[in-house]
Amino acid sequence: MTRTDLSLVVREDVPPQQIRSGPRSEQDAEARVALMRAADVGDAVMGRLVDAYGAPAAVEAIRNRALPAKFAAEEAAQERPPDLTARLNAWYARLAAVNPAADLEAGERSGARLIIPGTPAWPTQLDQLGAGRPLGLWVRGSADLRLACLRSVAVVGARAATSYGSHIAAEFGVGLSESGWTVVSGGAFGVDGAAHRGALVAGSPTIVVLACGVDVCYPRGHNTLFADVRAQGAVISECPPGVHPTRARFLIRNRLIAALSRGTVVVEAAVRSGALNTAAHALTLNRHLGAVPGPITSEMSAGCHRLLRERKAVCVTSPEEMIDLVGVMGDDLAPHVQVPGRPRDKLNEVTKRVLDAIPARGGAGPASIAVAAGVGLDVTLSALGGLAAAGYIERSANGWRLCKQTVSYRKAAESAVLDPPPAPAPDPDETPPYPDDCATSPA
Amino acid sequence: MTRTDLSLVVREDVPPQQIRSGPRSEQDAEARVALMRAADVGDAVMGRLVDAYGAPAAVEAIRNRALPAKFAAEEAAQERPPDLTARLNAWYARLAAVNPAADLEAGERSGARLIIPGTPAWPTQLDQLGAGRPLGLWVRGSADLRLACLRSVAVVGARAATSYGSHIAAEFGVGLSESGWTVVSGGAFGVDGAAHRGALVAGSPTIVVLACGVDVCYPRGHNTLFADVRAQGAVISECPPGVHPTRARFLIRNRLIAALSRGTVVVEAAVRSGALNTAAHALTLNRHLGAVPGPITSEMSAGCHRLLRERKAVCVTSPEEMIDLVGVMGDDLAPHVQVPGRPRDKLNEVTKRVLDAIPARGGAGPASIAVAAGVGLDVTLSALGGLAAAGYIERSANGWRLCKQTVSYRKAAESAVLDPPPAPAPDPDETPPYPDDCATSPA
Repeated sequence: MTRTDLSLVVREDVPPQQIRSGPRSEQDAEARVALMRAADVGDAVMGRLVDAYGAPAAVEAIRNRALPAKFAAEEAAQERPPDLTARLNAWYARLAAVNPAADLEAGERSGARLIIPGTPAWPTQLDQLGAGRPLGLWVRGSADLRLACLRSVAVVGARAATSYGSHIAAEFGVGLSESGWTVVSGGAFGVDGAAHRGALVAGSPTIVVLACGVDVCYPRGHNTLFADVRAQGAVISECPPGVHPTRARFLIRNRLIAALSRGTVVVEAAVRSGALNTAAHALTLNRHLGAVPGPITSEMSAGCHRLLRERKAVCVTSPEEMIDLVGVMGDDLAPHVQVPGRPRDKLNEVTKRVLDAIPARGGAGPASIAVAAGVGLDVTLSALGGLAAAGYIERSANGWRLCKQTVSYRKAAESAVLDPPPAPAPDPDETPPYPDDCATSPA
Repeated sequence: MTRTDLSLVVREDVPPQQIRSGPRSEQDAEARVALMRAADVGDAVMGRLVDAYGAPAAVEAIRNRALPAKFAAEEAAQERPPDLTARLNAWYARLAAVNPAADLEAGERSGARLIIPGTPAWPTQLDQLGAGRPLGLWVRGSADLRLACLRSVAVVGARAATSYGSHIAAEFGVGLSESGWTVVSGGAFGVDGAAHRGALVAGSPTIVVLACGVDVCYPRGHNTLFADVRAQGAVISECPPGVHPTRARFLIRNRLIAALSRGTVVVEAAVRSGALNTAAHALTLNRHLGAVPGPITSEMSAGCHRLLRERKAVCVTSPEEMIDLVGVMGDDLAPHVQVPGRPRDKLNEVTKRVLDAIPARGGAGPASIAVAAGVGLDVTLSALGGLAAAGYIERSANGWRLCKQTVSYRKAAESAVLDPPPAPAPDPDETPPYPDDCATSPA
């Protein structure tokens, strides 16, 4: 654990950066594939080792059971120093059984390609994961991962989504896709699947991030979906071919979903849900986080509501609002929800007061209307003329009264006296509380 | 409009505060009732006039069509000076037709009492409305308005509530009421009515704030509800008896709902809804504002979602969370949503790793499990023993494998090796993604 020779001999004259940014040899790829098997996904100690000394040297160090002394010292200086001996033993034991050439061949056979940090195909936003950055990514599909993820949104949520959640996820998939945004998600049933299906329908690439090898179909029921995704987007994973998902891999996979995309939207999540883990990764990475509200009677929305209540997430009710969140200022603004206008809105204040003062039954003379409205008689007379011409009011034997909201409105619609001519649509929430609905007492 | 004598003669030696806080004579009450008819509800100019000179002097000034010069000068100095002449003319015209004695009699006949600012019965939180404070309140019902509103929440929302909205409003009515909080709301169908009904069921007083006279039943269909409210709570209004609701009165009434309560929760509201007007009043008055989320597919929740999105309101999903918002720190805390625990959570990290490394089919020996888990052989052996005793795993011909989640778990529940003994409940969202669900490829 304390032999320094290795790094000195192999890398003495080459600074680490140059190694990382140089062209990748096949040797490097093979070493990374071996290390993918040796270390757990997201192993930050391995990440630091490879970043500092390169993958081939790391393999050699592990095979020799001797880490560079400088590295060991740096790890010991970490805030929470790892148990390097145990780690090295675990790596060593696994490395003994590894056959990287077979892995590369298996990948090739399944049509997957290996993408390595520092190469042009690498999505550089993953570098924000620091030492937890994957050693490489297996990509299966037609899409250019880096290009597709430049404008991408992670749509995540419950596997046991309700029909509401699945519907919303699909709507978001379609909406994001139609606006030129790539969907990034896992491969689970429920929200993940629905989001991918929506994106596929709209014709944009969509990215499935798996917690198993890209040649493993989990869940099995998504065999066809994954095939469709490969044809139009990509299925990716940091696990070597053939690897099965485990609980831990799912949680660690989530950081990739958050890191690949500009922002994450949680469609449906119970208070204990993997989607909230992705949301936490998004916050840690300073990415945007949205949450879709749902009925408070639904447990599957409780996680979203908690994010909203704790003000960790922005309330997002449409794909446009999500794009507004992650998009470029000005270019990707969501249209402000339009308040539906009503013809009455266009009346001026005085005319509205006069209209409010006119009884629905019986009738009232201009003088009493003027007193009730609190405006002058001359103004009242002029307003009454306009309102009558526009079909709001009519003259009865006892004076002015409100029109019944009938066909007469449409007749009056051609009137030029008030612009625009009103055809007051019946509105359940805002119907005028006119006296004809009242029960007792005189005016 | 420029006679100064009035104020000088009548009020010269008495500072305004003393007048306002002194005992109210019948003369004062009668003058206020007259002014309620003369001015529109919420007329701030009238409010300032009465605050400065008292109601009887204000009546006299209007009858004489001569406002104190000092007052006129102050009004002219306002940021947006009102048209005092027009205002005075409107007041004068209405005052001519007023019979305050008849109003007081009508109120008494309907069982209403008049509450006046400065008296012990007055809810002083209304004074935050400044000059827009009502001239008085007509109260019909058994409840002590001031006492009932000390701990009160306004539950507001759409008249055209969905069944979801009505359900939630009733739940909030019950929940608030059971926790000793008074519901304040309007008298409309939908959310208002449901909230009151919930509060009535739970047995607490509930306050209906009307936009018409307390003897007017609007809407007519709430005749029985209002009778029940009067028996247990109170129906109140700033409008004189017999007055019918108008559009303007509804909007101005909303400030009373917001001002009476410690906070407002919007249950359901379209983007154009009177409830959002109440919400705006609550924000202006620096009261707490909550919004209940709903399906984003429902237009009746769009107003709530906008409040959440603009971070004007806190996401509220239960009466407890609303009480947490408006209540006394510490006393009224909402219970934090409990994340349901699972037996597996209590396993230590190493045991979890070992469990994750055990195949569901076939079987594996301790050595290969140790390599897969990345832990030492001795630790693995110890963990395997515990897991087997607890019923997680079993020995097969080919080594250790996962148990099928069957009755055997219950048998093992008595085991003392791992505490607590697990009986992993099937969880749709978090079921372990074990290899038996996977399709292809070797381990």
